[in-house]
Amino acid sequence: MIERLVIIGVGLIGGSLARALREAGAVGEVVGCGRDRDHLEEAVRLGVIDRYELDADDAVEGADVVVLAVPVGSTIDVLEIIGPSLGPETVLTDVGSVKGSVVTDAHMVFGQMPPSFIPGHPIAGTERSGVAASSADLFRGRRVILTPETTSDPRALATVRAMWEQCGAEVVEMEVAHHDQVLAATSHLPHMLAYSLVDTLARLDDEAEIFRYAAGGFRDFTRIASSDPVMWRDICLANRDALLVMLDRYSADLTLLAEAIRAGDAERLLEVFSNAKAERDRFCGE
Amino acid sequence: MIERLVIIGVGLIGGSLARALREAGAVGEVVGCGRDRDHLEEAVRLGVIDRYELDADDAVEGADVVVLAVPVGSTIDVLEIIGPSLGPETVLTDVGSVKGSVVTDAHMVFGQMPPSFIPGHPIAGTERSGVAASSADLFRGRRVILTPETTSDPRALATVRAMWEQCGAEVVEMEVAHHDQVLAATSHLPHMLAYSLVDTLARLDDEAEIFRYAAGGFRDFTRIASSDPVMWRDICLANRDALLVMLDRYSADLTLLAEAIRAGDAERLLEVFSNAKAERDRFCGE
Repeated sequence: MIERLVIIGVGLIGGSLARALREAGAVGEVVGCGRDRDHLEEAVRLGVIDRYELDADDAVEGADVVVLAVPVGSTIDVLEIIGPSLGPETVLTDVGSVKGSVVTDAHMVFGQMPPSFIPGHPIAGTERSGVAASSADLFRGRRVILTPETTSDPRALATVRAMWEQCGAEVVEMEVAHHDQVLAATSHLPHMLAYSLVDTLARLDDEAEIFRYAAGGFRDFTRIASSDPVMWRDICLANRDALLVMLDRYSADLTLLAEAIRAGDAERLLEVFSNAKAERDRFCGE
Repeated sequence: MIERLVIIGVGLIGGSLARALREAGAVGEVVGCGRDRDHLEEAVRLGVIDRYELDADDAVEGADVVVLAVPVGSTIDVLEIIGPSLGPETVLTDVGSVKGSVVTDAHMVFGQMPPSFIPGHPIAGTERSGVAASSADLFRGRRVILTPETTSDPRALATVRAMWEQCGAEVVEMEVAHHDQVLAATSHLPHMLAYSLVDTLARLDDEAEIFRYAAGGFRDFTRIASSDPVMWRDICLANRDALLVMLDRYSADLTLLAEAIRAGDAERLLEVFSNAKAERDRFCGE
């Protein structure tokens, strides 16, 4: 039971976490924090949080657990603000899609990784954002990756792990760098491809007509291009190296595919498509 | 009312067309044709077709409407087989994702575009294939593009139009070359990107782990990579020129995006992502 949970950034992820913990009866008071009062009032009205603070240093006072659920580019600023007000017993975690930058930010602010700071990342979300889109079921059956270090406080790790398990998630632990490579491949790269596709099509001469004839496949394919632009700007910059490795590799493969099409290499095309279908069916289910 | 409908290729599209017309009471007898007897027996068992023929020239005898629903690469072979057996009153149409190659094939086989041949393309489908995946609702509310020519028989055009409208589809007419450009952008390019992504990831060292941490966005994004590889090989080759134009344009844009990430150009990234989100929300609904 978390007596007082403080969520900094009450959007899709922060809001869903609060809802899930409430539904599980795993939390006492939920305090929200953010910069936009209207937005926080909405969260109160929706019953997602009990009350809110506009100043993060006030918000974290007396907290058992503080969750940073802001775009990763804002992490360092928030850590600087809340650092002096964090109690010695307060457990700190985050939900960012990049973990290396968060660890670097913590080192910058605290001179080391605080033992009570357990970086985390729920592999869940939708293309929608904001507290109105939050749901108590968002994490059910999904994985949450934690990246504790050897210096991490076992009690803090146990608290964060239990918090996510009470949301119905499966918790796994991973090295920071490995997390960032895996996510670059499965999440950050696909988002770049989807944003770039919509961008390319939007600049064609007959743009309106183009989109009119887009079918369900296109809708699914580009769904992630409706994700929050600020969040994704921050992820790109925070995971730049791993993302560029994947982008370069993908571009090289796409060039080879274009060459096979140009050469009319039917055999090669069938091989690529057949292998891809087999892999996708195997991992995602037919 | 189509007294006798012959469907050559009883898969997802051909099967769904038969189901929809039956449900609408718009067809008398439905004759299926294909190379695989087991497959056709299944279609009979499912009630999709009344009977079948293994030889296409036998199948089309006495047909009011013949629908080619085979991969576009097989079009020319089927036209050569059925050509001599087509009655003077028989209306011919197809469902291929490329229309230029189908028209070229018809010219090769008949020396001209037969007035009773109305090329068509329903903008509908799923990543699944085969008659078991067919559904009477597949075309409901979807667009069907027809590419008639000035020499087309108005009666044949009216028959094909009415056929699709009875499936609940909205029929539009378009120039052949324009169809192939629009589809290259909205369908053929995205399929290449999805196949290529799964291919790239499948060849990473920690492939199994990579896919394990793929979330819902990845599942949606790669869904079209589970599409039929033979169908897509044929589409690539049949619409090579228009597809390569789009692939080159996309690759250039993706390179620019990678450069913006490499340069840490936060402003440019936010601009691309914001524009893409706005366009996607506008055309696909939020």
